[in-house]
Amino acid sequence: MSEPLPLPYRKLRQRSEEAYLLSTACALLEWDQETGMPPSAVEFRSTQIAHLQGKVHALMTGKAVDEWIAESESHPFRPDSPEAINAREWRYEYDRAAKIPRRLVEEFARARSLAQAAWQDARTKSEFPLFQPHLETILKLKLEMAKCWGYHHHPYDALVEGYERGATVAQLDALFDRLQPDLVELVGAATASERKDARCLQGPAPVAAQQAFNREVAAGVGFDFDAGRIDTAVHPFCTTLGPRDVRLTTRYSETDFTSSLFGVLHEAGHGMYEQNLPYDPEHPSLPRARAVSLGIHESQSRLWENHVGRSKTFWKRWLPEARRHFPHLDGVKPKQATHAVNSARRSFIRVEADEVTYDLHIILRYRLEKALVSGDLAVANLPSAWNEMFHQLFGLKVKSDREGCLQDVHWSFGLIGYFPTYSLGNINAAQLFQAALKDSTVATDLEEGRYESLLTWLREHVHQHGTHHLPADLIRRATGERPRPEYLLNHLRDRYL
Amino acid sequence: MSEPLPLPYRKLRQRSEEAYLLSTACALLEWDQETGMPPSAVEFRSTQIAHLQGKVHALMTGKAVDEWIAESESHPFRPDSPEAINAREWRYEYDRAAKIPRRLVEEFARARSLAQAAWQDARTKSEFPLFQPHLETILKLKLEMAKCWGYHHHPYDALVEGYERGATVAQLDALFDRLQPDLVELVGAATASERKDARCLQGPAPVAAQQAFNREVAAGVGFDFDAGRIDTAVHPFCTTLGPRDVRLTTRYSETDFTSSLFGVLHEAGHGMYEQNLPYDPEHPSLPRARAVSLGIHESQSRLWENHVGRSKTFWKRWLPEARRHFPHLDGVKPKQATHAVNSARRSFIRVEADEVTYDLHIILRYRLEKALVSGDLAVANLPSAWNEMFHQLFGLKVKSDREGCLQDVHWSFGLIGYFPTYSLGNINAAQLFQAALKDSTVATDLEEGRYESLLTWLREHVHQHGTHHLPADLIRRATGERPRPEYLLNHLRDRYL
Repeated sequence: MSEPLPLPYRKLRQRSEEAYLLSTACALLEWDQETGMPPSAVEFRSTQIAHLQGKVHALMTGKAVDEWIAESESHPFRPDSPEAINAREWRYEYDRAAKIPRRLVEEFARARSLAQAAWQDARTKSEFPLFQPHLETILKLKLEMAKCWGYHHHPYDALVEGYERGATVAQLDALFDRLQPDLVELVGAATASERKDARCLQGPAPVAAQQAFNREVAAGVGFDFDAGRIDTAVHPFCTTLGPRDVRLTTRYSETDFTSSLFGVLHEAGHGMYEQNLPYDPEHPSLPRARAVSLGIHESQSRLWENHVGRSKTFWKRWLPEARRHFPHLDGVKPKQATHAVNSARRSFIRVEADEVTYDLHIILRYRLEKALVSGDLAVANLPSAWNEMFHQLFGLKVKSDREGCLQDVHWSFGLIGYFPTYSLGNINAAQLFQAALKDSTVATDLEEGRYESLLTWLREHVHQHGTHHLPADLIRRATGERPRPEYLLNHLRDRYL
Repeated sequence: MSEPLPLPYRKLRQRSEEAYLLSTACALLEWDQETGMPPSAVEFRSTQIAHLQGKVHALMTGKAVDEWIAESESHPFRPDSPEAINAREWRYEYDRAAKIPRRLVEEFARARSLAQAAWQDARTKSEFPLFQPHLETILKLKLEMAKCWGYHHHPYDALVEGYERGATVAQLDALFDRLQPDLVELVGAATASERKDARCLQGPAPVAAQQAFNREVAAGVGFDFDAGRIDTAVHPFCTTLGPRDVRLTTRYSETDFTSSLFGVLHEAGHGMYEQNLPYDPEHPSLPRARAVSLGIHESQSRLWENHVGRSKTFWKRWLPEARRHFPHLDGVKPKQATHAVNSARRSFIRVEADEVTYDLHIILRYRLEKALVSGDLAVANLPSAWNEMFHQLFGLKVKSDREGCLQDVHWSFGLIGYFPTYSLGNINAAQLFQAALKDSTVATDLEEGRYESLLTWLREHVHQHGTHHLPADLIRRATGERPRPEYLLNHLRDRYL
């Protein structure tokens, strides 16, 4: 029989559970706001979300919590026991949260909620000035937060830390400076001429048919619909409302079913990570059972979207099913479909970008965010700065803010410093996928359109660890090497040259 | 300039606002559970709802609240001022809530949430034993509550009070004893032969077409989609998530569009009441801006569903629109459509019952509930008691519990004592509609398919008063008479004989 857990740890756990009940209710309020809330409800909803987030913040900060954590940290738990990991994570979260006054948490939550509605409106009308004051407020509040958190070199360091532990401007500058020239060269070669078959999958795609097909595919790769569902949102996302409740969203083009399909595969990659985290059934709130970072989270979405979903074996498996929903695919061969989903094209919209141009979209956002945060760029000048840098990187002229700086939901959500995690995800995905393929069962199964052994491999090497190993360590344990961008570049060369 | 409000009142108001933020979040959790939550999420969701309801209960009870209310009651507010009404309502709610210990509130919330899932399963499989232990728990907890609240004659009095202030078994027995023989006779006459044209509206009804048509009609009668929406649920309901967020639900038959249409008209009636309550924009939580009782609430839904929706002028107005969505209606005349939606038939399902048989369904439930509550009927014997009494009232043999005692969601929600309010609603609806028709603009507009002046009349005589006048008083002020069942009986005779 095991020793009973010490009282401060149990108090902390109970507090954490209460906070989790409220934070997941809050996640539902946000999910609903994105998927179907009536427009006039936004004002009240934003008050409601701000209030709940303030409550959660108050529950997990304060002197008593600090003391319970200190006592849990000094308790002689086995260093790799769940209890030790939970204590470490509570400390980390406490130290970040306690530095932000509740007033700022509530103000930020409210600003975010209003900004989302303003962004949707601005994006629809393609009018940046409608969003500008909201982004200014968000930036101001984020800079206040960066000051509260503290930083050595650049305020952006304090912000990116919230999404990717340990990431810094110095590292990201080095990484993107390493990637950019190779990517520009690759994009040049890959987009030199339009591949044949590039449009062979396009054709009439009723939303109901897409929904049915996407559901089959998502279930087929291992997303558990008993503990999740798919809804429609302007900007696709994945959110978790409880230990057995993961919500994906996507959006639909009525002439190209692959747009929603890859959206669903991407979000299902996030969703399967969430569904396979090591929840303690009695205590689902414990921080050990959370995703460790966004760079790891995004590796899961990109792995399923790109490494699985854009492979020839995937289309061998799924094209016959797709034909049942989309009769215009009669006569299309798996090889042609694979060409179609891997054709490269310089384009304006990040979420619709192919793999080879994708990271250039991230580099653009990273450099602009850094300039906004350092004060080198005023929010009012964002559209022109965006359009200019976009032209440098892509050689294309942005014609409207909707396809320029208004395209992404992130800034309206207050997510500044988030974008780099997409490229980290791409890098991690390539490296993890290569490692998984070394397992001969995984490789054979994928050849034959079976996904269970890949999901098992990911569960074993990534999902089940939750926050136990920090990102770089997790990658090293799973792949035998520290994270290296060469796997991504090699993968892109293989696929596009 | 008006005097500042006294401090205890302002404290109470602030407390009430906090409770409202949580109770509306809780309403969203419940709405989501009914409209799309993944099945495995139920366990966590029920914990979450129980926790939030416990929080709300704790916020609005306790010694400080009691004192603030007492001080607000003794403040010399003008007797018909919003402040006086709010103080009166807080006192009423406090006195009911404070008698229930938080332990019982949470236990009940949890039992309800689990019972809903069990009921859905039991109903799908038509197996009462799957639901029986849940209903036993709910009944046990409700009886505990009745004891806490106290009663003079019958524990059912304490339960029905929660839905209809002042209603008692003595009154309801008298009312139903008065109605039953007339109704049985009316039903006999109305169902003697199937009316011609009874099925002329039936035909292929794709869900998307129904959704489009229902939306047109709901907007056409005055439901505000900027502050509301319609979703799908097994058992249709209307819920309010905030001052500008009213959610309706309906369900679809793919061969009869009128099933979802009348569902939507009914719920839109509830929804328009909610949308037109006298919210203080700064303080949407105040109890003055709530519906006064379910018997009044139901009068709004039944008025729009039956008095408007089943009238000939309605079909003159909407049949041409319906034809655009349902081509099989070509050639059907408004008069035939009106006959179709007013044909009477003895049938098993309450929510699909015509107006003339409807109240017999309520009488059945009322008598069974009373027997369950008094202990004269054991839950295990409910199916046989249901089937026997159903046969007495309707002359039909119930073949499965799904079309018998498992058909309604109410008991799984813990709503015992709720059903009689449907008949009170029918009685109030008939009386209010007759009064509204005395306004010649209302009468003329309805003839011509315009609904604004009727909505204005209802807003003025019902909605805008919130909880100001208690139910019987509200009816007397609006119609010049106390509530009288004769209006309903006369309406049914007019329509069916």
